[in-house]
Amino acid sequence: MKILRYRYRNRVEWGIWKDEGIQPVRGDLFGSLEEQGEVLSPSRVEYMSPLRPNKLIAIGRNYVDHAKEMGNAVPEEPMMFLVSPTAVIGSGEAIHLPNRIDSIEFEAELAVVIGEEGRNIPAGRASEHILGYTCGIDVSNRVLQKKDGQFTRAKSFDTFKPLGPMIETDMDSSDRWIRLKVNGEIRQDGRTSDMVHSVPALVEAISHVFPLERGDVILTGTPAGVGRLFPGDQVEMEIEGIGTLSHRVEG
Amino acid sequence: MKILRYRYRNRVEWGIWKDEGIQPVRGDLFGSLEEQGEVLSPSRVEYMSPLRPNKLIAIGRNYVDHAKEMGNAVPEEPMMFLVSPTAVIGSGEAIHLPNRIDSIEFEAELAVVIGEEGRNIPAGRASEHILGYTCGIDVSNRVLQKKDGQFTRAKSFDTFKPLGPMIETDMDSSDRWIRLKVNGEIRQDGRTSDMVHSVPALVEAISHVFPLERGDVILTGTPAGVGRLFPGDQVEMEIEGIGTLSHRVEG
Repeated sequence: MKILRYRYRNRVEWGIWKDEGIQPVRGDLFGSLEEQGEVLSPSRVEYMSPLRPNKLIAIGRNYVDHAKEMGNAVPEEPMMFLVSPTAVIGSGEAIHLPNRIDSIEFEAELAVVIGEEGRNIPAGRASEHILGYTCGIDVSNRVLQKKDGQFTRAKSFDTFKPLGPMIETDMDSSDRWIRLKVNGEIRQDGRTSDMVHSVPALVEAISHVFPLERGDVILTGTPAGVGRLFPGDQVEMEIEGIGTLSHRVEG
Repeated sequence: MKILRYRYRNRVEWGIWKDEGIQPVRGDLFGSLEEQGEVLSPSRVEYMSPLRPNKLIAIGRNYVDHAKEMGNAVPEEPMMFLVSPTAVIGSGEAIHLPNRIDSIEFEAELAVVIGEEGRNIPAGRASEHILGYTCGIDVSNRVLQKKDGQFTRAKSFDTFKPLGPMIETDMDSSDRWIRLKVNGEIRQDGRTSDMVHSVPALVEAISHVFPLERGDVILTGTPAGVGRLFPGDQVEMEIEGIGTLSHRVEG
């Protein structure tokens, strides 16, 4: 099932993506969703991020080729940090570059949405705590990232975390392609199977530090090919079986 | 006014600290609080942290003497990162050391509670967005802090963020003493006036990156004197005009 959130006639609603269009639903993202009302044409709604994350957890250097291109070693254990959930936007919203003089780069990432709270979750039981998967772009100011050492500031500006367009709840995420295009040109083209620490391993590692809670989102790291964004760029990011994020870059 | 949260007869309540005891109140921490019921003796309640923070924002290296003792330079701009709000405990709860072999240290910090949302807040208007001040201990696993580079993991384990015992809403925080004792011996004895970046400067800097929201808490950095915690230690941490956090350390 593909769940999305959108604005339609000034109301925020949940919906399920179907072949014939968007079926509006009512209920609780983490409980049950009931179909209600008529199917809408996707062109009539404005996408929102499928949720405002509770904790937004990011993982650094989780693909060997990306760690290499940045001149970094691959960490033995997952390198985790938090970014501000206020940076999240939905597909179609513009990415703003507040410090245009800095190198601000894109990173395409598989995002994991947590559905059930847990502590000390063994990797083998990770799937019981995952609601589904969505696409995320981890926009990063490289100048501030280097200056601070800590990555939070560089990655937490408004609009720096496109998320969506929908949550796929029935998917094996272990080997999916993940692609990012800028102005129609493929810049990142990776596979989730190349992650150093797999999704179940990340769930285990994070939940041994702090509890994973409903609505937490894990950005699982980016494959090689990251590059700079400029005002006017059009970014499309897609993960096999989920959908496509589409964003214009503004100065 | 000193606002606290506590458990009494299995109910969680808000209260106001008065000379004669704790006055229970009802209402909204960020709106109005109405007195209701009889004054309780502090000995009859179990303290909780005054709130579960929304975002828990930490500032590194914000006192010159502490940066020196750790062998670090003082950053030009505030060094900000996020830690997990799930690590917060109230006064009286035990601090647990999950990796006893690692050096796990205490850091006494002034905590700022945000009451009104804001973006791009000028330092001169910071006070309009601050609900009040409380005490925080930023317990930190130095081995993981060094290993990860990112500080989130080292500082986000359960019980690593004592917060409380109450929020003082009518206080000038610019020059208050801040002290931490272990087993009765003073180990940290600083003044908030020694911060490199003052509270208003921090509010300005953070809110230029991401919005500060109701319930956000800023841990403003620690003065010199940090040191290791061991199972069996008793920690008392006090800020002039606020109150005292009291914690036993367990293995």
